[in-house]
Amino acid sequence: MIRVALDVLGGDAAPEAPLEGALAALARWPDELSIALVGPEALLAPRMSAFPSDRVELIEADQRIEPSEAPVLAVRRKPGSTIVRGLEAVRDGRADAFISAGSTGAVMAASVLTLGVLPGVDRPPVGALVPTERGRVLVLDVGANIHVRPHQLHQFAHLGSIYVRASLGKRRPRIGLLNVGEEERKGDESAVAAYALLSDDPAIDFVGNVEGHQIIAGAVDVLVCGGFVGNVLLKFYESMAGFILGILRGSGVADVADVADLDRMLRFLDYAEVGGAPLLGVDGVVVICHGSSPPRAIENALRAAIDSVTSGMVAEMRSALRGLRPAGAREGAES
Amino acid sequence: MIRVALDVLGGDAAPEAPLEGALAALARWPDELSIALVGPEALLAPRMSAFPSDRVELIEADQRIEPSEAPVLAVRRKPGSTIVRGLEAVRDGRADAFISAGSTGAVMAASVLTLGVLPGVDRPPVGALVPTERGRVLVLDVGANIHVRPHQLHQFAHLGSIYVRASLGKRRPRIGLLNVGEEERKGDESAVAAYALLSDDPAIDFVGNVEGHQIIAGAVDVLVCGGFVGNVLLKFYESMAGFILGILRGSGVADVADVADLDRMLRFLDYAEVGGAPLLGVDGVVVICHGSSPPRAIENALRAAIDSVTSGMVAEMRSALRGLRPAGAREGAES
Repeated sequence: MIRVALDVLGGDAAPEAPLEGALAALARWPDELSIALVGPEALLAPRMSAFPSDRVELIEADQRIEPSEAPVLAVRRKPGSTIVRGLEAVRDGRADAFISAGSTGAVMAASVLTLGVLPGVDRPPVGALVPTERGRVLVLDVGANIHVRPHQLHQFAHLGSIYVRASLGKRRPRIGLLNVGEEERKGDESAVAAYALLSDDPAIDFVGNVEGHQIIAGAVDVLVCGGFVGNVLLKFYESMAGFILGILRGSGVADVADVADLDRMLRFLDYAEVGGAPLLGVDGVVVICHGSSPPRAIENALRAAIDSVTSGMVAEMRSALRGLRPAGAREGAES
Repeated sequence: MIRVALDVLGGDAAPEAPLEGALAALARWPDELSIALVGPEALLAPRMSAFPSDRVELIEADQRIEPSEAPVLAVRRKPGSTIVRGLEAVRDGRADAFISAGSTGAVMAASVLTLGVLPGVDRPPVGALVPTERGRVLVLDVGANIHVRPHQLHQFAHLGSIYVRASLGKRRPRIGLLNVGEEERKGDESAVAAYALLSDDPAIDFVGNVEGHQIIAGAVDVLVCGGFVGNVLLKFYESMAGFILGILRGSGVADVADVADLDRMLRFLDYAEVGGAPLLGVDGVVVICHGSSPPRAIENALRAAIDSVTSGMVAEMRSALRGLRPAGAREGAES
């Protein structure tokens, strides 16, 4: 039985979306999942009767960190927040994983402060599982690391590879480096140096540079990139389905019945459906959901958390990254 | 009458696509356009009878630069190439503009070497007119400047603003800075510094940072960004229409008749249809077309070239950028 701490105050649709997602997941995985609801007792106590009492507990937390707050400051000022309390439960072994649809920055900052970072990781990246023509690609980093150095991209490749193996069951994930051309000398100095690190590493299956138009074809399972371009790409992707649906609606090609079908069909483009964005490289399992996550996204994130815990992903990352340390340390000293 | 030098050997579908595009454009704009076909006489002479003799001439050039060649080297090694000969015609006043669907890098390098760069421009950016929910947005740079400094982004804003005014007829184009958040302190140091330069400049209508999901909504007319992220974004965008069309086809929602309609409809997403990508900041009008440009894309590029020449765009850029020079020089000296 895996116990997941769930932030009840996180996201635009809190507390309803997290609570509904929790109920659905508990019904769906009766033998695997128990949940610690992290939120104000006054809010939660009256609702506990809806939950199976042997598989749900309550962790008191009466502060909410707003997405507009500066992350590190908010985490320090609000020790009683759902984000801090939930992560403390993971640190103290009272929960196996933490899920929040709250402030991404605050979850990242609190994860680093509370759980700590795995040896060999400079700064944990956030990954997003983006749908392609051939399954999903884990794009990382999508926003945590705006400045990124070559050895960090190398770390991302290992973290991503292990995550994809654990969560998608791919034996030997193909790793690509996002770049502006296929040749190894393409891109900025950071990309060229990262290419060399990745291609020299026999522990990962590096297939080379991936250009913008190759992402959607599903050329790789893990796409390594800096947080700036990753963030822009992910947000752009999210907006495309609605845009094209709008064109179809306006065109008269799709009639009214069709549009409902199209809506349903294109919904799979919504990456929030997949199970949230894993924060990788911290000493624990943390899943960050989109602020607008519906119950179904929370439910899927709970599934992803179960898989991450049962696969022993964090232990595997710890051992894989230990070997990378010297390179990271050497390069870090230059800056 | 505007005279455009057209690279007959440029692109995957050369010489057919350039020649067919030229014929169509000559028929469409009989009072505005004349063309200098740049290519081998042996190839072109037998075909000249198809063209109106008073509006077409031939510029001999018997070398072709391949997209795989290193641009600067290729330009130096092949002085008789269509790219070099066509740009020399512009430099010498024998043509008003140059269009090529050949190697982007070679066109850029040869433009800088042959035409020169406008005072106040460090390195010319390439723009792409990307369709949005509200018209098109000029994204620049989309690949010429992988390393980009804040004052260059400032230059791009002026170049883009003038181009959009000239080609799309927008009186006061809205300028946005591509970033990972709306707040002015978001992004890397380069983005933060560029934000300050752009918001302090009364000569442009800077509306602030634009995130990935806001691009498609048409929030701005000009989106300023570094060449790395711009290149990834553009290529990704190009691949999306085909991807979504594939989903619709596979779904059974769209029947066979519908699919033809969808194809036609989504074709407007193809940015190559718009009229190529302008190379801005060189002392002349240069339009770079996608390597896979069909005749229609060449025809549209000819229209864009006519508009750029008749608007007096280059003269306006020269005068606008002169004012920026001190800032550029100051910052350039730091690096």
